[in-house]
Amino acid sequence: MDALFSPDRMTTPTSADAPATLQLKRVAIDTYRENVAYLHRDCAIYRAEGFQALSKVEVQANGFRILATLNVVDDPCIVGPDELGLSEDAFAQMGVPAGHDARIAHAEPPGSIPALHRKIAGERLSHGDFRAIVRDIAEHRYSKIELTAFVVACHQGELDREEVYYLSEAMASVGRRLDWHDHPVVDKHCIGGIPGNRTSMLVVPIVAAHGILCPKTSSRAITSPAGTADTMEVLANVEPPFDRLMEIVREHHACLAWGGTSDLSPADDVLISVERPLSIDSPGQMVASILSKKVAAGSTHLLLDIPVGPTAKVRSMPEAQRLRRLFEFVAQRLGLTIDVVITDGRQPIGRGIGPVLEARDVMWVLQNDPRGPDDLRLKALRLAGRMLEFDADVRGGDGFAIARDILESGRALEKMQAIIAAQGRRAFDPDQPELSPLSFEVTAATSGVVCELDNLQLARIARLAGAPKVAGAGVDLLKKLGERVEAGEALYRVHAAYPADQGFARQEAQRHVGVRLGAELDASAFSLET
Amino acid sequence: MDALFSPDRMTTPTSADAPATLQLKRVAIDTYRENVAYLHRDCAIYRAEGFQALSKVEVQANGFRILATLNVVDDPCIVGPDELGLSEDAFAQMGVPAGHDARIAHAEPPGSIPALHRKIAGERLSHGDFRAIVRDIAEHRYSKIELTAFVVACHQGELDREEVYYLSEAMASVGRRLDWHDHPVVDKHCIGGIPGNRTSMLVVPIVAAHGILCPKTSSRAITSPAGTADTMEVLANVEPPFDRLMEIVREHHACLAWGGTSDLSPADDVLISVERPLSIDSPGQMVASILSKKVAAGSTHLLLDIPVGPTAKVRSMPEAQRLRRLFEFVAQRLGLTIDVVITDGRQPIGRGIGPVLEARDVMWVLQNDPRGPDDLRLKALRLAGRMLEFDADVRGGDGFAIARDILESGRALEKMQAIIAAQGRRAFDPDQPELSPLSFEVTAATSGVVCELDNLQLARIARLAGAPKVAGAGVDLLKKLGERVEAGEALYRVHAAYPADQGFARQEAQRHVGVRLGAELDASAFSLET
Repeated sequence: MDALFSPDRMTTPTSADAPATLQLKRVAIDTYRENVAYLHRDCAIYRAEGFQALSKVEVQANGFRILATLNVVDDPCIVGPDELGLSEDAFAQMGVPAGHDARIAHAEPPGSIPALHRKIAGERLSHGDFRAIVRDIAEHRYSKIELTAFVVACHQGELDREEVYYLSEAMASVGRRLDWHDHPVVDKHCIGGIPGNRTSMLVVPIVAAHGILCPKTSSRAITSPAGTADTMEVLANVEPPFDRLMEIVREHHACLAWGGTSDLSPADDVLISVERPLSIDSPGQMVASILSKKVAAGSTHLLLDIPVGPTAKVRSMPEAQRLRRLFEFVAQRLGLTIDVVITDGRQPIGRGIGPVLEARDVMWVLQNDPRGPDDLRLKALRLAGRMLEFDADVRGGDGFAIARDILESGRALEKMQAIIAAQGRRAFDPDQPELSPLSFEVTAATSGVVCELDNLQLARIARLAGAPKVAGAGVDLLKKLGERVEAGEALYRVHAAYPADQGFARQEAQRHVGVRLGAELDASAFSLET
Repeated sequence: MDALFSPDRMTTPTSADAPATLQLKRVAIDTYRENVAYLHRDCAIYRAEGFQALSKVEVQANGFRILATLNVVDDPCIVGPDELGLSEDAFAQMGVPAGHDARIAHAEPPGSIPALHRKIAGERLSHGDFRAIVRDIAEHRYSKIELTAFVVACHQGELDREEVYYLSEAMASVGRRLDWHDHPVVDKHCIGGIPGNRTSMLVVPIVAAHGILCPKTSSRAITSPAGTADTMEVLANVEPPFDRLMEIVREHHACLAWGGTSDLSPADDVLISVERPLSIDSPGQMVASILSKKVAAGSTHLLLDIPVGPTAKVRSMPEAQRLRRLFEFVAQRLGLTIDVVITDGRQPIGRGIGPVLEARDVMWVLQNDPRGPDDLRLKALRLAGRMLEFDADVRGGDGFAIARDILESGRALEKMQAIIAAQGRRAFDPDQPELSPLSFEVTAATSGVVCELDNLQLARIARLAGAPKVAGAGVDLLKKLGERVEAGEALYRVHAAYPADQGFARQEAQRHVGVRLGAELDASAFSLET
C-alpha cells in the first residue's frame, strides 16, 4: 500500500496573487503570422511569473484572448515596464485599442501533446487523438516545432487509410462549414502540377448553365505561374465580400472567387505553413487537406482530376490509382460523393502559361473561336460532362454531349459573362490581351517532332518572367506534343514586363529549354480512362 | 535532341546593383537563441532586394557575418530606414559596434536540403549527406522547421547503426577538438534519469589520484534536480576560464567543471534546442550526441553507465543491451575505447537529491565517514575500478581493490581538495550543510518494507522544492529499497527556501508519495553485470 502523509502536518500552500494588469501597446514589428508579446525585463509581472524568453503566453484584454510567444525587451522605448507589447498581427487580432488594460499568463500546454508524442514514436492514433491535435493546431496552440513534428511524423509513418479519414474529419470539423440549402452542390479539384490547366473556368459556367450549383473558390498560385484565382482576376474581381458571393451563387448558381477569406479549414492553413517550406506533400495529408476544405465549403459532390505524367505531380499510373482509392475511401466516409478522373499530365493544357495568356485561352474556348486550344476545350467538356452526371436526371454517358451543346450554343459564355458582371467586370479583350511587352522567342535549332514538354521547367520560366505577380507575363506555348517543327520555327514565346525578369527567364531557358525534339512521338503513352 | 536557342537573340541579363550599406543598430529584444534582423519597411535595400518577412538573411560587417531571420518594422524608434537592427544575441555575435556599416543580403539556402528531404522521405543517407547536414546545422543555416524535420525523421525512421556512426562522426568533426597530449584520457558518462547519482565526483578524484588524466566537464540540470555541475558548484567554482582549466588538468590530472563554454559540439547544442521541447531521445541521437561530445573533448577512453529500472530512462535489460551494442559499434569506429556498465536504476543513488544534499553525501564518502551512503560508495568504487583498468598496467579485475585503497587511504579526498582549491574553493561543511530552512517530512502511515521508489516522482518533488536553482533545496531520502519502516517513521525530508516552493512540493507529495511499502521486497530483480 502507498505510504501516507501524517495528517497533522498538512497546511494549505499559499496561492499566488492575482496578476495585475498592464497597458497594451502596439509594437510595430511584422513577425509574419507568429504572435509575439513583448515585456520589459523590469516588468513586475515578468519577474513574478517566472516567464522565460520564448514562453508561450496567453494575453487577455476586454474579453478577447490570444496566444503568443514572449520576447523580453531591455529598451523602454519599445515597451515600458508597465506595458504589454504585441507585434502587428497579434495587436490586430486582439482588436483592442492601445492603452487598454491587459493580462498575461502562462499558456496551458496543448492537451494533445501526449498524442503528438505517440505519433512521433510511430504509433497509430485514434479519431479522438486526431480531433484533439487538430483542434489545438487550429487554435494556434502548437509551436512551429510541434507542427513540424506532427507533419513529418505523419508523413514518414504513412498514416493508414482510417487515420487519413480521422484527420480529414477532424480538419473539416474546425472552422466554418457552409450550407447552400441546395442539392447537389458540385465542386472540382485538380491535384496540380500542370501549367495552364484552367479547366475550372470552363467547367463552372457549363455546369451552372445546366442549373447545378457550383460555388467555386480557388487559390492564388504559391509556386506555380498562375492559380485559378489569378487568371479569373484578369476578367473579374475575385474578392467580393462573402455575403455578396452568397447572393451571386443564389442568383447565378456559381461563382469563381478567391477562397482566401473564407476561413474554411483553419488547421489546414496552419499546417501548410510548415508543409510548404519542407516540400512535404504526402498522400494522407493531401487527401485530408483537399477533402476537409471541400466538406467545409458545403460541397456534396466532388470531381477530382489527377493528371499523370513524367513531369506532373503524380508520376505513374499505379501511384495515381493508389491515390484514387484513398480519396474514394475517405470521401465515402465523409459523406462526400466523389468521381476521380485520371488525365493526361504529359504537357501543359492549352497554350498560355500566366494569367492573361490563360484568360485569353479560356475566352477563346467560351466564344467557340477556332484559336481556342483544342486540348483545353476537350478536357473541359469531358470533366464538365462527368459533373453533369451528378445530376440524377442525367444518364450515365450523356454528360459530354450535354456539356458540348451548352458550350457550342453560347450558353456557357453567357453564364460566364453573368458571373463576371456580378463579381465586378474588368476590361478584357482576348483578341488584344494586355501582354507584357518585353518578349523573346525560343526557336528550334533543327527540325523534328515535339517529343517531350517539361511542365516544371516551363512553369519555372513563366515565373521568372514575372507570372503571376505580373499578370501579363508568362509563356505562350506555340507547339504541343506530336507537332512537327521546322528549324528556326518558334517553340514558345516569353513575355515579361521588366528587363531583370526577362533576363532571368532567358537565362533559365538557355540553361534548359524544356522542349525535346525527336524523330517521332513515342506512342506508348499510358491508357487513360474516358 | 534538345531544341536550341537561335544565337542572334541572346543578350546578357542586367546584373543587380551592389548593395549599399546600412548602419548597425542594437535592438534591445531578447529573442533567445534566434538571430533576428530588423529592417524598416521604407528602407531602400529592403524594397530593392525583395525580402519577405521571415526571410533568412546574411548580415556582414567588418569581416564578420551572421545569419538571421528578418522582421520588418514600421516604427523608426525601433529601427530607422537607413539602419540594420539586430536582436541582442545577434548583435553580440556580430561583435561590431553600433553605427558601423553593414550589408544585408539573401542567405544562401543550405546546400544539404535535398539530403534532408531524402531523410524525410525515409531514405538512408550517406556519410557525406550527414556531414553536409551537420555542417549546415552547426552554422545556424537551418530554420527551426528544418531542424525539427531532421530530428523527427531520424527518430521515426530509426537510423541504422552505420548511419548513427556517420552522424556521430559528422558531429564530432564540427567545432573544436581538444588535445591533452597524453594517453589515456578517460571520461565517464551516465545515461541519466537517476537522482542523486553523483558518482563522477568520486570517480574523478580516485582515477586522478592514480595518475590517469580525467578532465571532466559536466552539464547543469535541465529537467533534473541537480546536474554534476550544480552539485560541484556547492564545493568550488565550476566556470574557470578555459585556459585555467587546462592548467588545472595539467597539474592535478583532473577537473570537475561546467562544460557550457567549450563549444565542443555546436551541432549538438542546436539539435537539443528542438529535441528537448519534443522530449525526443532516440537511441541513435543519444549515441551521436554523447560520443561526439566525448571525442571532441579529447577523450580516448569512456566508461558508460546505463542504469536500468522501471522509473529509469532505460526500462528493461533487452533495451539496455541494444543500446550498449550500438554504443560499442559506433565508439569502435570513432576510435574511442568504450566500456559499458549496466547498473541498478531502481532507486536514487545516495540519500540527497539536490545540490547541497548531494555534496554532503559525496564529502561523507570521500572522508570515509560512516554516514556516507553505501550504495553511492560501492557504485563509485565499481565504476572507478573499471576506469583504472583503462591503464594498461592495471590487470583486469584489480581495479576495484585499487580504487578502494585510494579512497580509504584518503588520497581521493586529498585529490578532491586539490581540485577544489585549484578551481576556487567555496566554504562547505558536510556536517553543517546549508540546507534550505523550510522543511517537512513525509512519514509512513503503516509499517512495512520499502518495495518501490519512484525516481521520477522524487525528482519532481525535489524540483518543485526549488532544486537546483536553490542549492539548499531538495529531498533527503531516509529509507531505501528493502529497508523496514515503522508507522510514523519519516521516509524522506523535503527542504525548501520559499513558502510557495514548499507548498508545491507538499502538494505533489500528497498527490503521489513516490514510495511504496509492502510485506517484502520482490527479490526477482534483474541480474547485473559486475
